[in-house]
Amino acid sequence: MRIASIDVEGVRRFGRVDGESFVPLAVGQDPLSLLDATVALQWDAPVPFSATGPLHPPLPVTSLRDFITFEQHTAGSLRAVTGKDEVPEAWFEAPAFYFTNPHAAIGSGQDVPMPPGSEVFDFELEVAVVIGRDGYNLSVEEAWEHIGGYTIFNDWSARDLQQREMRVGLGPAKGKDTATTIGPVIVTPDELAASRDGDRLSLDMEVSINGHRIGGDSLANMAWSFAELISYASRGTWVRRGDILGSGTSGGGCLAEFWGWSGAQVPTPLTVGDEVSMTVEGIGTVSNRIVAGPPMHEVPAARRVKWSQPPLP
Amino acid sequence: MRIASIDVEGVRRFGRVDGESFVPLAVGQDPLSLLDATVALQWDAPVPFSATGPLHPPLPVTSLRDFITFEQHTAGSLRAVTGKDEVPEAWFEAPAFYFTNPHAAIGSGQDVPMPPGSEVFDFELEVAVVIGRDGYNLSVEEAWEHIGGYTIFNDWSARDLQQREMRVGLGPAKGKDTATTIGPVIVTPDELAASRDGDRLSLDMEVSINGHRIGGDSLANMAWSFAELISYASRGTWVRRGDILGSGTSGGGCLAEFWGWSGAQVPTPLTVGDEVSMTVEGIGTVSNRIVAGPPMHEVPAARRVKWSQPPLP
Repeated sequence: MRIASIDVEGVRRFGRVDGESFVPLAVGQDPLSLLDATVALQWDAPVPFSATGPLHPPLPVTSLRDFITFEQHTAGSLRAVTGKDEVPEAWFEAPAFYFTNPHAAIGSGQDVPMPPGSEVFDFELEVAVVIGRDGYNLSVEEAWEHIGGYTIFNDWSARDLQQREMRVGLGPAKGKDTATTIGPVIVTPDELAASRDGDRLSLDMEVSINGHRIGGDSLANMAWSFAELISYASRGTWVRRGDILGSGTSGGGCLAEFWGWSGAQVPTPLTVGDEVSMTVEGIGTVSNRIVAGPPMHEVPAARRVKWSQPPLP
Repeated sequence: MRIASIDVEGVRRFGRVDGESFVPLAVGQDPLSLLDATVALQWDAPVPFSATGPLHPPLPVTSLRDFITFEQHTAGSLRAVTGKDEVPEAWFEAPAFYFTNPHAAIGSGQDVPMPPGSEVFDFELEVAVVIGRDGYNLSVEEAWEHIGGYTIFNDWSARDLQQREMRVGLGPAKGKDTATTIGPVIVTPDELAASRDGDRLSLDMEVSINGHRIGGDSLANMAWSFAELISYASRGTWVRRGDILGSGTSGGGCLAEFWGWSGAQVPTPLTVGDEVSMTVEGIGTVSNRIVAGPPMHEVPAARRVKWSQPPLP
């Protein structure tokens, strides 16, 4: 099944895509039940579907985790920040991730506002796995049964804001707050069975700006499988139906990696009017155009207070 | 109003606390409407309320952001990690935060499982602000109108897991994944009006382990006001009704700060059986006991792939 969400007669609907038709789920059913093959679903009459959108994220967003699992991306992006492409040993030990803003999720064809205060704007080409049913502290083997689908994930990134956040050592948060594109559809695993290569998915990924190809990779180059990411995410806690876990940026999947290799901001950062398109084999294409952002409201610097080392308890 | 959530006849209910009674919101109303003074609410008959719980988080959790705004905590905790208590300039420039796991929220009286793989477990004493109505790109002045209430926030922390994550520079995520206590109630701003001191709330905060006081602070020592945190969080994006924003750990509000001052793990990290209690003036007390965690499922180290520097686009 290919799950999508569009406006039908002015109302946001969730449903499945059948060729050039969109079949809406009948009103009153939980859209997340589209991920549950055991639920008997009721459908409304099909309407025409345009893959170029505008689309909403295919399902309501519960939580977003984003990993970093492509070694080439990690090496190049670190080089852009530190001048060296040595990946720290901690990176290889376990699949690192952060939680990101669930309120910034958008679909293909929706506008991306420039983040206030940012002048170094970038994209990130990823594939995300969508959790199909709740799980707690799953083994890798168990985790496979909790995969509900796959989707394209563009983690829009304000590199200047992100870099300041990384000096404090939390997040990134404001560096990733303006938008995350999810779509165009969520594809259930059976549709990608022919692309399984062991525990990886061998899918071509590529990204272009204004129709000019920037780079790409194979999803098979992830340093961990999606089941391994889910097991790690669920260690000692819950993953819930509808949770989205990004693969991390592919090789050649963002401008910052190229800035690492070129030693300069070449290609130039994104600006208003640019359209970024990402295509992943078997899933489809997402495209978004950058528009001017809202005004910047100042927040003052820290107010200093007197403090002293407390007595030991 | 004091908002809480308890089980009544085996069903989780949301409602208000009146003295020693709990008045449940009638079934079928959105619990988040408890934050909206303009909605006429329907109530069911009161039942007895015990402040010692067990309680659920007072409202459904939409998203959790956690800041770091107490300079004393920042200096001491950095000293525990780096040996120096110099706070980086980036910390003073803007209020840093990260998103944390919405699925790990618990109430007072609920058990806290030890995180699998952690041996250095800690708490963090904070107060959180709860968003009362949706807002986009708010100024500091506008942000005041979006405050729905305040609650105690214990950001349970696996320091050993967190430290590895900070070497990669994302998160923390698994370092904060086992539990976040929210409660015992959410208090609407009118109830704390007498404690307003300019744009800060002058509330005493303290934490104890097994009845022995560890440390504490005044909430007035935040380097930014809650309105400033909301304005910053909403810059170029949404804050939504029910979103929770933690103040960051107060001075003397976690063990790691004392480890920084003492140069050793004194007091000792938390262990199974310990009960941590936090009291904040005007809000109440949350207490949780630590129990054994689930088994550790291994996830392998990164699978290395051949990669090479890509051609510039």
